[in-house]
Amino acid sequence: MEKAYPMERSRTIQTRLVLPPDTNHLQTIFGGKVLAYIDEIAALSAMKHSNSIVVSASIDSVDFLSAAKAGDALELEAFVTSTGRTSMEVFVKVYANNLLTGDKQLTTESFLTMVAVDGEGNPIEVPKVKPSTEEEQRLFDTADARKEHRKYRKKIK
Amino acid sequence: MEKAYPMERSRTIQTRLVLPPDTNHLQTIFGGKVLAYIDEIAALSAMKHSNSIVVSASIDSVDFLSAAKAGDALELEAFVTSTGRTSMEVFVKVYANNLLTGDKQLTTESFLTMVAVDGEGNPIEVPKVKPSTEEEQRLFDTADARKEHRKYRKKIK
Amino acid sequence: MEKAYPMERSRTIQTRLVLPPDTNHLQTIFGGKVLAYIDEIAALSAMKHSNSIVVSASIDSVDFLSAAKAGDALELEAFVTSTGRTSMEVFVKVYANNLLTGDKQLTTESFLTMVAVDGEGNPIEVPKVKPSTEEEQRLFDTADARKEHRKYRKKIK
Amino acid sequence: MEKAYPMERSRTIQTRLVLPPDTNHLQTIFGGKVLAYIDEIAALSAMKHSNSIVVSASIDSVDFLSAAKAGDALELEAFVTSTGRTSMEVFVKVYANNLLTGDKQLTTESFLTMVAVDGEGNPIEVPKVKPSTEEEQRLFDTADARKEHRKYRKKIK
Amino acid sequence: MEKAYPMERSRTIQTRLVLPPDTNHLQTIFGGKVLAYIDEIAALSAMKHSNSIVVSASIDSVDFLSAAKAGDALELEAFVTSTGRTSMEVFVKVYANNLLTGDKQLTTESFLTMVAVDGEGNPIEVPKVKPSTEEEQRLFDTADARKEHRKYRKKIK
Amino acid sequence: MEKAYPMERSRTIQTRLVLPPDTNHLQTIFGGKVLAYIDEIAALSAMKHSNSIVVSASIDSVDFLSAAKAGDALELEAFVTSTGRTSMEVFVKVYANNLLTGDKQLTTESFLTMVAVDGEGNPIEVPKVKPSTEEEQRLFDTADARKEHRKYRKKIK
Ligand SMILES: CC(C)(COP(=O)(O)OP(=O)(O)OC[C@H]1O[C@@H](n2cnc3c(N)ncnc32)[C@H](O)[C@@H]1OP(=O)(O)O)[C@@H](O)C(=O)NCCC(=O)NCCS
Ligand SMILES: CC(C)(COP(=O)(O)OP(=O)(O)OC[C@H]1O[C@@H](n2cnc3c(N)ncnc32)[C@H](O)[C@@H]1OP(=O)(O)O)[C@@H](O)C(=O)NCCC(=O)NCCS
Ligand SMILES: CC(C)(COP(=O)(O)OP(=O)(O)OC[C@H]1O[C@@H](n2cnc3c(N)ncnc32)[C@H](O)[C@@H]1OP(=O)(O)O)[C@@H](O)C(=O)NCCC(=O)NCCS
Ligand SMILES: CC(C)(COP(=O)(O)OP(=O)(O)OC[C@H]1O[C@@H](n2cnc3c(N)ncnc32)[C@H](O)[C@@H]1OP(=O)(O)O)[C@@H](O)C(=O)NCCC(=O)NCCS
Repeated sequence: MEKAYPMERSRTIQTRLVLPPDTNHLQTIFGGKVLAYIDEIAALSAMKHSNSIVVSASIDSVDFLSAAKAGDALELEAFVTSTGRTSMEVFVKVYANNLLTGDKQLTTESFLTMVAVDGEGNPIEVPKVKPSTEEEQRLFDTADARKEHRKYRKKIK
Repeated sequence: MEKAYPMERSRTIQTRLVLPPDTNHLQTIFGGKVLAYIDEIAALSAMKHSNSIVVSASIDSVDFLSAAKAGDALELEAFVTSTGRTSMEVFVKVYANNLLTGDKQLTTESFLTMVAVDGEGNPIEVPKVKPSTEEEQRLFDTADARKEHRKYRKKIK
Repeated sequence: MEKAYPMERSRTIQTRLVLPPDTNHLQTIFGGKVLAYIDEIAALSAMKHSNSIVVSASIDSVDFLSAAKAGDALELEAFVTSTGRTSMEVFVKVYANNLLTGDKQLTTESFLTMVAVDGEGNPIEVPKVKPSTEEEQRLFDTADARKEHRKYRKKIK
Repeated sequence: MEKAYPMERSRTIQTRLVLPPDTNHLQTIFGGKVLAYIDEIAALSAMKHSNSIVVSASIDSVDFLSAAKAGDALELEAFVTSTGRTSMEVFVKVYANNLLTGDKQLTTESFLTMVAVDGEGNPIEVPKVKPSTEEEQRLFDTADARKEHRKYRKKIK
Repeated sequence: MEKAYPMERSRTIQTRLVLPPDTNHLQTIFGGKVLAYIDEIAALSAMKHSNSIVVSASIDSVDFLSAAKAGDALELEAFVTSTGRTSMEVFVKVYANNLLTGDKQLTTESFLTMVAVDGEGNPIEVPKVKPSTEEEQRLFDTADARKEHRKYRKKIK
Repeated sequence: MEKAYPMERSRTIQTRLVLPPDTNHLQTIFGGKVLAYIDEIAALSAMKHSNSIVVSASIDSVDFLSAAKAGDALELEAFVTSTGRTSMEVFVKVYANNLLTGDKQLTTESFLTMVAVDGEGNPIEVPKVKPSTEEEQRLFDTADARKEHRKYRKKIK
């Protein structure tokens, strides 16, 4: 029976203070900065799961639901929700935490696909993942549907 | 008859040298770095079109087709392909240019939605856009289909 | 009876990928980089506890027990262990996690004193803190001894 | 007959959003930041022309004619205007574009000398360059005068 | 008779403009930024003395006596005050210089221990150091007391 | 009799460790990085002399005589060599110090003109400067010749 790690093992948490240089004239964080944080934590989570170097293969569409302001804490959480032969799907949630009020809002969430690679950058096999909590189970069960959707999504142009 | 700017007016070009700090152990650039560049040039393009501050509303899915290595030049191009009342759709193309060989590869392309805002962050109207070249016309004609697709894409989870 | 928050409420976690620019010629992270991360997470934790801006008043001595290498994940954890009238003592632990082997080592730990301040930088009162776990209780009980030691430590020179 | 590339081939364009961290208390960009951008784009242009690594040999005097403010777009353009055996002269123009008004001003322009080098840093031969437009022709014709002036300029001290 | 370098030889000076990105909402510099500068100049000083790569072994407690504001110049000074077989004790002083008034205040001072290492990170012997001025002599004479205190300081927890 | 400060008063020193991210594939520092350091220290020196905000008006030509490598210490020194009504000429010297050998080489030197400005960016008067050492006297005496040369230098194009 082949090895499968619990999703918990790849769970990764980030808390980052939003600083003025990360923000525009409205003092709200640049979308690009958030995207960079999302990719970094997804990579960390996939590296933890596969114990290998990884590269980003794709990121699903991202909707920025609310703005984070300078002085807020950005709280990110990521874990591997499913695996292929060499790829891992990582789910990332981002919250903006207003530290002066304690008020916390969902900024965005997204799924990324990371691929485990060897020193030459060739894809290598990854261990399976198994869900424990209800949320994990649900994300695990819906993973194939997302993978299908990804294959057949085409850029309309 | 209302004002409409040619797409050419918002065309923005970036050339960036990929530096070691932007890269992983394979010396290939982080996906998050590319995403940050894409968001920055999309914002610049939308600001040029609307002559206003803008915020990122969403980015469509991004596939990283090929890696860019330290020493390569990353070449980005962006322009506004369609507009709503306060939002603009921006198309971004990213190429990796190996400066030692002159060989150039498509790294990725994506569509972003940027919203024009006033000093309080409230959405404000933007001028229309009109296509000139064939590529511009095609992207202009397919914009509504993409907008529909965005409305009805739901995160499967 | 005055307000007291559980230590858990201020618990803050960071996971950071060690990148080449953060490292010296041996590819090991600069001590100064680690110190900057420690101060940042301590500030975040103190801001969460006091819901106010904070400034760093002092950091106790720091011993670098083991080196973190480029490619490792630096894992930091912080929470408020005791409070004065306007100051908070924050305990920070730092681990280096070798993502390719899963091997995890204590890099360092330290106590910092953060002071809650208003918009003019004047110290303001902070809520008390109460321990729950055994580790929290022990750190809470030993806090006064550390505060004493801090007062009477003098730079010998 | 030896190889000569059109100047167009090395033309490189940069558009950069001026961010608060790049600016002083007047919210105007630091001269040093502009100089760093000028050197980077000159290097990119020279690398495109010579398909080799390059090092900066010198930069001619730079006058900062007008300030760029946070929120402006800095637009840089560079191309190789003449070549020696191993050196290339690169012309760089910098404009500040006020994105809210569309008003565009020349910030500065300068000539740099970049030298093509091999992996050991030894100068190597570069292809010739040939002008097409009138501006290119004029810059090409005046290149020797500038080179002379460079040789005989001495620091008066 | 073994080699001993004058302390003067390792004296290193830094002057840094405090920029907005280094500061919090009160426009005062982050403690962590100051700690990073202290570690960097201590490393430079120890490298100058030992002509080798060095790693940070520990930093004594640091009290932040006064704040430095954006626009101030942070002035750091460091020199090696004593040596072991492979370790060096470095004393660092930090002043905040208000450039508009010329008013200068001590921000903090600290002692660090740096260890000289070879290419594999193994500790290597360092030359002795000899004091010249009165301050240097005093710091030299008190070094053993500090070393003792360091050995027996334990984290109370 | 009007106020004149000794040049010594504006003397500013920087020592910076050259880090990999500041260097190209030959591990030698980018010219643009050196130029940014030169402008920063010139601004610091001019601010110290005039106790006011300053902007960079111009930099004379810069020849990069030798390369600085990652791991070297870059040592910069600057002081005000002459003044006009609102402008200051600052002389900057840059040395590359190989910390492993102690070997020190002149990387470049240059003159910059900084202008003192008020909160609106309007030029304001600056105190005079007076030389003490022989080097200072010589630079002071030759300042007018450089100023003349600056006025009449034209970009040949
Ligand atoms: C990602 C990459 C390694 C895939 O290479 P490839 O030649 O397609 O390799 P394969 O066909 O074997 O695919 C490997 C896995 O990646 C998955 N994959 C490839 N492209 C993908 C995409 N756009 N979206 C999601 N998954 C993708 C495949 O489904 C496969 O998964 P599986 O092994 O679990 O079945 C390659 O496209 C690449 O190097 N891209 C650039 C990565 C990068 O550098 N990103 C940073 C910014 S550019
Ligand atoms: C920290 C600071 C606000 C204290 O100001 P102060 O005038 O001493 O104010 P107080 O005497 O009322 O002290 C306020 C609290 O700070 C504590 N404190 C002050 N200095 C301290 C030190 N070095 N170590 C630990 N605690 C300290 C006091 O014990 C007091 O705690 P309490 O209210 O819980 O009893 C002041 O020293 C300061 O602004 N320092 C610079 C902070 C900074 O900018 N740091 C970043 C890098 S410079
Ligand atoms: C630039 C450098 C490679 C020239 O080396 P060199 O020993 O002078 O080599 P050469 O004498 O063969 O000169 C090579 C070319 O550079 C040109 N050159 C050298 N110094 C120059 C200067 N200050 N300004 C303009 N051109 C210069 C020469 O004219 C020659 O051009 P050509 O081949 O077209 O006739 C060398 O000075 C160097 O490495 N400088 C440091 C470069 C650097 O690291 N810059 C970044 C910041 S320090
Ligand atoms: C520098 C600047 C303030 C001069 O403004 P101005 O309208 O020319 O003001 P003035 O004519 O009164 O000149 C003020 C002083 O600057 C000097 N100056 C102006 N341009 C200069 C140049 N290119 N080189 C040397 N000195 C110059 C003048 O000689 C005068 O000196 P003095 O008072 O000692 O006689 C203006 O050109 C400016 O703001 N430039 C942009 C500065 C900047 O933002 N730099 C950063 C990167 S863009």
